[in-house]
Order: sequence, then C-alpha cells, then structure tokens
Amino acid sequence: MNNVTKDSWRHLFSPATVAVIGASNTAGSWGNNALRGLLNNKERRVYPVNPNSPEVVGIKAYRSIMDIPDAIDLAVIVVAERIVPGVMRQCVAKGVKSAIIITSGFGEMGDEGRKLEREVADIARQGGIRFIGPNSMGHADTRSQLSTFGQFGEMPKGEVAVLAQSGSTCLKIVRSLTESGIALGKYVSTGNEADLITEDYLEYLADDDDTKIIALYVEGLRDGRRFFNLAKKITPRKPIVVVKVGGTEESARAVMSHTGALAGADAVYTAAFKQSGVIRVEDDDELCDVVYALLNSPLPRGNRAGILSIGGGPGALAAEACEKEGLAIGKLEESTITKLDGLLSSRWPRRNPVDMAGPSAAEISVVSSLLFAMMEDKNLDFILLLAPLIMDKSLLAGRLGLGPEAIKAYREKEAKNIALIREKVEAYEKPVVMMWQWRGFSDPEITGLFRQGRFIVCSNARRAARVLRYLVWYRHYLDVIAGK
Amino acid sequence: MNNVTKDSWRHLFSPATVAVIGASNTAGSWGNNALRGLLNNKERRVYPVNPNSPEVVGIKAYRSIMDIPDAIDLAVIVVAERIVPGVMRQCVAKGVKSAIIITSGFGEMGDEGRKLEREVADIARQGGIRFIGPNSMGHADTRSQLSTFGQFGEMPKGEVAVLAQSGSTCLKIVRSLTESGIALGKYVSTGNEADLITEDYLEYLADDDDTKIIALYVEGLRDGRRFFNLAKKITPRKPIVVVKVGGTEESARAVMSHTGALAGADAVYTAAFKQSGVIRVEDDDELCDVVYALLNSPLPRGNRAGILSIGGGPGALAAEACEKEGLAIGKLEESTITKLDGLLSSRWPRRNPVDMAGPSAAEISVVSSLLFAMMEDKNLDFILLLAPLIMDKSLLAGRLGLGPEAIKAYREKEAKNIALIREKVEAYEKPVVMMWQWRGFSDPEITGLFRQGRFIVCSNARRAARVLRYLVWYRHYLDVIAGK
Repeated sequence: MNNVTKDSWRHLFSPATVAVIGASNTAGSWGNNALRGLLNNKERRVYPVNPNSPEVVGIKAYRSIMDIPDAIDLAVIVVAERIVPGVMRQCVAKGVKSAIIITSGFGEMGDEGRKLEREVADIARQGGIRFIGPNSMGHADTRSQLSTFGQFGEMPKGEVAVLAQSGSTCLKIVRSLTESGIALGKYVSTGNEADLITEDYLEYLADDDDTKIIALYVEGLRDGRRFFNLAKKITPRKPIVVVKVGGTEESARAVMSHTGALAGADAVYTAAFKQSGVIRVEDDDELCDVVYALLNSPLPRGNRAGILSIGGGPGALAAEACEKEGLAIGKLEESTITKLDGLLSSRWPRRNPVDMAGPSAAEISVVSSLLFAMMEDKNLDFILLLAPLIMDKSLLAGRLGLGPEAIKAYREKEAKNIALIREKVEAYEKPVVMMWQWRGFSDPEITGLFRQGRFIVCSNARRAARVLRYLVWYRHYLDVIAGK
Repeated sequence: MNNVTKDSWRHLFSPATVAVIGASNTAGSWGNNALRGLLNNKERRVYPVNPNSPEVVGIKAYRSIMDIPDAIDLAVIVVAERIVPGVMRQCVAKGVKSAIIITSGFGEMGDEGRKLEREVADIARQGGIRFIGPNSMGHADTRSQLSTFGQFGEMPKGEVAVLAQSGSTCLKIVRSLTESGIALGKYVSTGNEADLITEDYLEYLADDDDTKIIALYVEGLRDGRRFFNLAKKITPRKPIVVVKVGGTEESARAVMSHTGALAGADAVYTAAFKQSGVIRVEDDDELCDVVYALLNSPLPRGNRAGILSIGGGPGALAAEACEKEGLAIGKLEESTITKLDGLLSSRWPRRNPVDMAGPSAAEISVVSSLLFAMMEDKNLDFILLLAPLIMDKSLLAGRLGLGPEAIKAYREKEAKNIALIREKVEAYEKPVVMMWQWRGFSDPEITGLFRQGRFIVCSNARRAARVLRYLVWYRHYLDVIAGK
C-alpha cells in the first residue's frame, strides 16, 4: 500500500460530507448508531442511504449514493458483506474520496471472505478510494468532532492517538483513557486492513502535529520492516506504546480467526520493539496506565525508588513489587535522614522504604514535608507515595470535627500543596506515584484535586512498579540514542 | 507461647467490660479513635483511663485502671511506650483478663525496644494476661461488635477472618473486602507478637465455627513448623489465603525494621505453603480477589477455560492471559459448536475463544444462551465472560429508547437470568468470571445485580486468570489429598 495522500487523510478524518450506506432506523443497529453519532457535528452534511426507507432518524434518506445531490468525502459502509463490492463500485462512480467499511464477514472468515475482501480492495484501488476496514468498528477525530463509532455527545480534544486491530479493544482503551480524564485526538479500529494498514496510519501520525503519543493494539503486522523503521524515527519525538497479542499458542490462533492476521514469532517482535524504542506493555490496562503517565509526568532519570508509607506492611509490599520489576530501592542520603529525623518520631526505621510508623489522622500534614525531603534526595529517581495527601470528608468532619467552612479552607490548602508538589515533580524530573487508596479514589472532589496536579494514581504497588519500569526503560532508551 | 485458653479468646474478642488506658480527647489520636469506636456497642461497659482529665468524650474517666469499680475483661493500652510496663503491672494487679497494646516503639526499634517488649511480656505472662501487640493497630469481632481500630458504625457479620502482621495492610484488606460486599468475622493487626503469635490465632480460628475462610498477611513466622502443621489440618476444611512479603532483599530489610520479624528464605516458604494447601498470592489485591472467589464460587474441576467475548481482541487478550498463568483453552465439543451455530451469525470463528463477532447492542440477549451452551460443554471447566449480561441505563434509554417502565421490566428479566446462571454455576461447579466493563462497574444498580448472583467480577483478564489459577490449584490439592 503506502503513499496515502494528505487529501485522503483529510477526507477520512475531517470530511465535510458523509454518506452512511446502510443507515437504519433499528435502534441499536450499527447503521443506526453510526448515523446518529455522525449527527453530533451540526456543520457536517450527513446523508443516510437506505433503499427501503424515505427517512432515517428523521432525515431524508437516499435509495443509493448515486442519488445524493452533493459530493461525498467519506462513505461509511454498513451493508451486508455480499453487497459491499457493488456499493464500492457505486462509490467509485460517485467520485467518493474515502471510505470506512464497518461490515464484517471478510478475510476473518477464511478463503471465501478473503476473496470478497480482495475484490472490494481492487475496486477501491482502481477507483482511487482509500478505506478503513473492512470489519472495523469505526474511527474518530476529536478536532473535527467526527466519529463513526456511534458515540454521542461532544468529544474533548486531546493529543493521544489510538490504533487498534480490534474494535472492541479500541473502544475499551478509549473508554479507559477517557475515564482517567485523558482526551484523545484520533482513534481507529483498523479492522482487517485490506487497504490502509497500521503502518500507513503510523506514518501519518508521525507528522501529525495534533498527536503527541501513539497507543497501539496489534495482532499482527503486514510490513514489520516498515513498521519498525517508522517507529525508530518516531520514538525519539513521540512515545509509542503497544500491546501485541499472539504470544501464546491459543492467542495466536484466536488472532488468526479474528482479523486473519498472522501473529508471528513473539521473541522477534519483542526484540524489534525494544530496538526501535517502542514501549511494549502486557495488556490494555497497562497501556492506559503508561499513556496516562507519559502524558502527565516527566520521565525519571533512573531506576531508584523512594517509598514513603504510612505503615510498614504497605512499604514492604511496595519494595517487593519494585524489585520484582527490576527497579532498585534507593539508599537515603545522610542529609535526608537528618531532615526526616526532624519530622518523624524516633520510631521511624531511618531507611528506605520510609515507614512513617503510624502517625494518627491528625498528623498527616507532615506527609508533604516528608515527600519534599525525599524528592530532594539525589539517590532517589521517583517516589511511591503510600500515605494520604488529601483527607476525605468523613475524616475531616468525623474524626477532626471540622465544619463546612473549615473543610473548604482545608481543601484550598491541599490544592496549593498539590500544585507545589507538581512544580517539584517537573523541576526535579521525579515522578510521584500516589497509591493511598483507602478512601477517596471514588470521591470526585479528591480525584479532581489529583487530576489538577496531574498525579499518577495507582490502586496497587505492582501496577505502579510496572508503569515506572516502562518509564525508566524509555528514558534509558532516549538517553542512549542521544549519546548520554 | 501456645495453650491460650478459651476464656482468653472470649475476653479478647467479646469482652463485657473494656478499659481504654490512654483514652484521649484529642480528635484523630489513637486514644480518641479507639475509645469512640468501642462506644459503638451500647451493651458493653467501656471505661476511659486518663490521669489528667475527669471526662473523655463526655464519659467519666478514671485516673488509673485501679480506680475502675468493675472487673475488666480487656484493657486497650494506648500510652507512651516507656510507661507500658507500669500499666501492664497495674492490669495484673487489677485482675484484667486480656489486653491489646496499640503503642509502638518496641521490638521494631532495635535492642532497646526489644528489651522493653520482653519486660512487658514477662509481666503479662506472670500475671496471666494474654495480649495482642505491641505495635498493633487494633482488632475486631463483628459478632460481638467489638473494634479497637476506631471504626464507627455497625459492622456487618461475616465468615472471613483476617490476620495481618501490619496494621495498615490489615485495614487495607478489610476495606477492600468490605467494598466488594464481603462481611468479615474477625480481624487482628497482630503487631510485634510479643505474646500471641500468628500461629496462636490460627489455632483458634481452626475451630472457630464463625470462620470459614482465613486470610493472612505474613512478614515472618515465629514457629513455622507449628504454622504449617496447623495449616495442613485446616486447609481441607477451610481455605487459607496468604500474602507473604520479604521475598526480595529490600522487602526483607523493610520487614525487619517494621515488625522485627525475620523474613526467612522465600523458596522454603513457597514449598511449605504448597505442601500444606495454603493458597499463596502475590499481594493484598490478589488476596481480596481470591477470598471473594472462594466465598462466592465453587472450585473449578479442572484448568480448561472457556472464553466468550463480544469481540476478537478481548478474546485474544484473555486467551493469552490464561495461558501465561498456566491455564488451558478448552477445545469446544462438536455439540457445542452446533448449538452456537444456531445462535450466532456465520461469522463466528467456530472455536474457543468464542468471538461473538460483534453483535449490536440490540442483540445482547443472546449472551446468556451462549453462556449456557458453553457451561454444558464437558471440555470447559470455567468461563471467562467478556460480554454484557446487563445493559446499562444509557443503552436502554438512549440506544434502545426504553421508558422507565420498560427498563424496570428489563431489569427483572436480567435479575432472573442472573439467578439462573448462578444455579448452573453451582450445578456444574463451573465458575463464571465476568469481565465486561465498559460501563456499569460503577453503577450500583448493576453491581447490585451481580452481587445478588454472587458473580466473580474482574476488571481485567490477567487478574481473572490469576484468580482462576489459584482456585484450580486449590481444587487440585483437595482432590489429591482426598485420593481422587
């Protein structure tokens, strides 16, 4: 494939006119969802095509795309697979610029389907139409407020691009990121990749100024060499985070019957990802954790953890999790020990992990002073924080007996504190990962404060250690290629 | 130690009278929290002891425990460490039956602290007082509504006991379990174990009818031989789930400075846990997952996963996660394939993982029929379900356009369906793990329906695979010792 023009990308991601071929009045159907989702953007001219219905969701429908009295930038194809070739021929005749085929039942179905898929691809190529799919669940661009996924409501504009060779996984990643407060730029369920392949999208995103981070779900690559050459050029400027499945026997088989992709030897992929600076994570949850961290945190200078814990047990668990992930537990500088001696009771163990030795709820204001002292320590590259920086309402009102006014004042102090920590995170290039979770992870007031401070928040030490391992590795890669 | 009498346990876990020595008016302090928590149970007679204040939280306080005009079953000691020996002497003189020492600054502090700890233990032993701690964060019994942790409000009564050699970790486990809807029986932060040790509690819980599952956080064992002999006797009747830290260099050091316990060689522990049927998990989150599953699910007969997924990507990720944890992907029986052919479009891959090949939201009612077919398959021992069984409100109201009455009727149908699945889970001894998570994990109506059906719900395939691996292992252990 290759050589996709700028115009093609523009028509795919910000078309002025869209035809939905197979638009349907049936609630919950693909042809209904896609159409209704597209109607979010009032500026765009959207034309339903349905031979059996004069109107779809209250909008005049056309019997065929040929009847639409407007040029069409993007055709969204949602009809039965056997009539897709005919529809594609009509699109060519109509002069349609680009298409997305949501219909499935092609290459993933074996020989018959592969034949049908080739037929459609040949028609499109000869007619100059570049297309996504088939067997795609949709694509989206938040800048142009385009989504063929059947999403409703305004999409916040962001700088993360997601490419996934599985529609369900694409949506799952998109939703997880969104729930973490991350806005996306573009996302594509690439489907069977009969025309546009992952490598094409990657090449496009390489120079797309709106994209700062690229997240990928990969089952198999059509042109591995091209992928890794591209990746090598991109990763010094933009991180690429990948989940690649097919590493075990059954997952490889599942992949084959899913998108028809060959999974390939896992060890080869692992080595190639490593050499080209691609951060390979284990599953979609880790992908989201790492994207969040890359977007919201500097990369640590090294692999030495500082652990600050309100109790000994959580500190020991965190130390174990770090070491299992190949991170080191930094040795505190003497000056840090002196500083902490001034802040903690004589019961603290005077070593890392720093166990605060159980201060009561009334004493947690000391946590940020401890954190600052540890951030200043030259032997620590990042901090895992297992202690509260923010008190939840039940503590403030219940145990401390504060009234509404006093709680408000307390919150303001906390917000200032978090902003201050953020400044130090940037200045020292030391990520802080928050793991205090007894309460508050579900309190929007508290999560809101952490989001303002762009804190990495993990529910679990192992998850935190894995995120940091990836950040450490990527920083190391960048340092090596920069000759540091 | 050993030979703790029934009376001692009764005084510790359901005392009629409690003295809080070091009760305090300072909001948020240990001596304030413990006292206020104890006042939850109105039947119990609670006496604050504070030499400087005639009243604590509005209750008459005594200058010394000697002044209390009542016999005391349990003394809660929250005074500075240097005066603990004197207080313990007074407890002996007063004829106190049992105690818990929350005060820290003992064995975990090195030689000086160890000396002080031994002094206190000697006084108690000579005076016939059995005690928890020192350096404990509290203990609780939900049947007698006793808590020295400073928890407020009624505690639901359950059948899970938690023992933890870290107070913070104890509370974290208790809170995680509670948030999953699990009621606890007893829990103890065992502290430095100067008198009562983990092995003593275990011996007690072995024959405690209120305890069905035992969850432990262990840093080190004082009497490993006794522990494993006990465990061997207990695990055929009651599962024991353990997190044991100290497996890496730094975590071992952290453990030593925390409770003064020696972590010991990890490989020895691993082998001993295995031989005695103890389920050893990796961290506190896994502990909670496994306790939930043991409480709410039968054990699977074997290690063969069935995977039912709404999309190919999530199915492939789940297959990979299972295989990485040593689980197998079952081969579907021909009869199952025939059944599924009748339920799915020709696009489904006709193999496990069963990819539903993207039905629209309107078609999800087919999921339970597919699930039933897979549960009947003799080649599958448990099912991972990556597809919705319950529709969230926004789908019902938005995409399907249902009104409030129709939504109510739909919910009733769903509840019946979940009850039916539950019946089959029991009848076939096939756990079903739900991993559909795009929405609804935070909707109390939906989580409520799953709780009613006692579903195992995991946010992530790796987490699900690990839980199942532990269940499979435990079932295998039980089969082997039963000579099956």
